[in-house]
Formats: sequence, structure tokens, C-alpha cells
Amino acid sequence: MQFWFDFASTYSYVAALRVEDACARAGVTLSHRPFLLGPLFEQQLGIRDSPFNVHRERGQYMWRDLERLCEKYQLPWRRPAVFPRSSVLAARVACCAGAATGPLVRAIFRANFAEDQDIAQPEVLRALVDGIGGDGAQALELAASTEVRAQLRANTAEAIRLGIFGAPDFLAAGELFFGQDRLDDAIAWETTRGSPRPART
Amino acid sequence: MQFWFDFASTYSYVAALRVEDACARAGVTLSHRPFLLGPLFEQQLGIRDSPFNVHRERGQYMWRDLERLCEKYQLPWRRPAVFPRSSVLAARVACCAGAATGPLVRAIFRANFAEDQDIAQPEVLRALVDGIGGDGAQALELAASTEVRAQLRANTAEAIRLGIFGAPDFLAAGELFFGQDRLDDAIAWETTRGSPRPART
Repeated sequence: MQFWFDFASTYSYVAALRVEDACARAGVTLSHRPFLLGPLFEQQLGIRDSPFNVHRERGQYMWRDLERLCEKYQLPWRRPAVFPRSSVLAARVACCAGAATGPLVRAIFRANFAEDQDIAQPEVLRALVDGIGGDGAQALELAASTEVRAQLRANTAEAIRLGIFGAPDFLAAGELFFGQDRLDDAIAWETTRGSPRPART
Repeated sequence: MQFWFDFASTYSYVAALRVEDACARAGVTLSHRPFLLGPLFEQQLGIRDSPFNVHRERGQYMWRDLERLCEKYQLPWRRPAVFPRSSVLAARVACCAGAATGPLVRAIFRANFAEDQDIAQPEVLRALVDGIGGDGAQALELAASTEVRAQLRANTAEAIRLGIFGAPDFLAAGELFFGQDRLDDAIAWETTRGSPRPART
């Protein structure tokens, strides 16, 4: 199952901290797909801000809802001083994290939404990579490469092609599920209609 | 618990056909609150159409999602030929249905989203009221009264005051839950934080 997310997205934070355990319990293989909501919203809605800021009432609800969801799922939560934060650099770093993707994604989301750190800053990302046992300086260098920039652009283009219009999303057996509260539906879809997993050898 | 809905809203349909059983199982008293999304969207977003039509990609997803949800909850589903249908008259009829509110709400939603009937037409609503054992002609007369029109306007004003920005919503122990997929959360909130029910006598 593919997990599509943007590091600036509040509901993606909740999903990111739930999805790995949920997939592990169900025996579903998870694949992280960072992308950028910014170009997508600009193309689809003609806006250059979060819809939660543009639609004020929806935003007010979202902030309270996040408190409740984090309480429900026992996740740490601190409302970030800046929203949405630029997630371009974070997404690039996540694009080239290889086997460390899971821990890194969780660390970046926690920094933004539990510790109110500015994940747009290179030094913050460097420390986060170092903190999970990686090489932060090397990760930042790689993230700046033409290949990684192109990878993130390709992810965003693929998100648009898949019909994505917000985040987070789960792609399960070819079907899109939007919203963190559809995680269980997506896993059920994947387990009942996805291709059978290869037997363990 | 209060159930806020618009008869034009697809996700309200799913909620309307689930909410009564769910509340009954949990021992939660349910109160129906029909309102109009139209004036709300115009005021909050400056649009005079459904956001699912304005944001094309979100609409495409919604239509597929409704098929899946209706399959999951074993609800009949037929995509209506017109979307959104004018729900003003249907909401007025529901505002004055008294003890028949539950069956009438379900009948109107089924007509729109399972039978592709034009619920904007008085003769359709008359037949629906007759069909649940009421007096359709009398219901239409009452729905046209100044009092009932004022009641629906008051409902919509109250929805806006509560912070509602879409439908369906559940108001549980003073807290708003948006979206049919938060029905269980709303009921849990009501049962753990709502006022205790009076003992049965």
C-alpha cells in the first residue's frame, strides 16, 4: 500500500504516526510517497495557501479536531507557530532516505507537529537525520541533487495523475482513499483485493 | 446528539442511513437538524455550487468513494442525474415532520441517492410523505408557512454559528464532528462526555 503525504499537512501527521503499525498488524507492505500539496492546490484551486487558511471555518475545526485525534491515538501534539510550513526540503530529504524512510518521516512530522520546529530549515533537517542515526550533512547534499529534485517533482505529478486533491491518501490495490480516518478502509481494501503477498522464504 | 445534514449532500445520505441505528445501539438520543449548505458556502467560500463541482478532482473522488461506502454499509446507491439538487423544500418538509422525522429523512435521502428522484419537486415530496403514512398535501402546505421557512433559516444560521462548514456533522456534548466517517467518534464523545440520560421510568 502506498502512503501519500505532505510534511506540512496536519492530518498527514496523524496518518504517518499510525500507518506503519496498522500495516504491520495487517501484514501489508507500506511504501512512503512524499509529495507537495502546494503546486497541486495552485493547479486545482488557484490558491497559494492551505485550504485550511483560505476556508477559515474549516481551519478552525481542523485545529480542534487535531487535538482530539491526537488524544484519541495518544500522539504528542503542539500546534505549530507557522502553518503551513514549507515542506519542500523535508520532502526532498525523505525522497532519498532509503531504508531510513520510516523513522525519518516520523521524526520530521514530530518535529513540525509535536515540537514546533521549523522543518523548512536545513539545520533542523540535518539534526533530525543525525538523530535517527543517519548522516545529516550528506542527506542535505543528496537532497539538493538534480535527481532528488526531479524525484519529488515526479511524485507530485504522479499524485495529480492519481486524482489526489489533498493529503494524506492511501493507494490500496489501485484505489485511492483520502483522509487519515480512512486508513482502516484502505488496509481492508488492500488485504481483500490486493495482490497476494509472496510467501516468506 | 444532534445530526446536521443537507438533503443535497452525498455523505449526509450515508450518515442519515447509519446514524439512527448507531445511536440506538449506544443508547444516545438523536435529534435531526436539517439546514442548507447553499447559503453557507456562498457566505464562507463565495461559491454558488457544490465544492465537489467547483473542485473537480475532489468531486471525482467523492463519486467513487460513495459507491465504496454504500457497498461497505450495504446501502442502495444510484448516482443522481442532477447534483446538487435543490434541497430547500425537502428541508422545510423535514423541519415540520415531528415524530415522523426519522422515517421521512431516510425516505427523502433514499429518493435522491438510491432512486434518482427529483426531491426539489413538490409532487415527489408529497408522495414521500404519503409513503411513510403521513399526509403529503398537508405537509407541503405547512412547509410553505412563514414559521417553517423561518425555522429552516434559523437552523442554517445556527449551523454557521456552530462553526459548520460542510455536511454531515454531529454535535456531541457541545463538540462538532464533521463527516460521516466520524460518526463513531461523535457517539463515543457523547457517551463519555455528554450529560447522563435520565433513568427510564
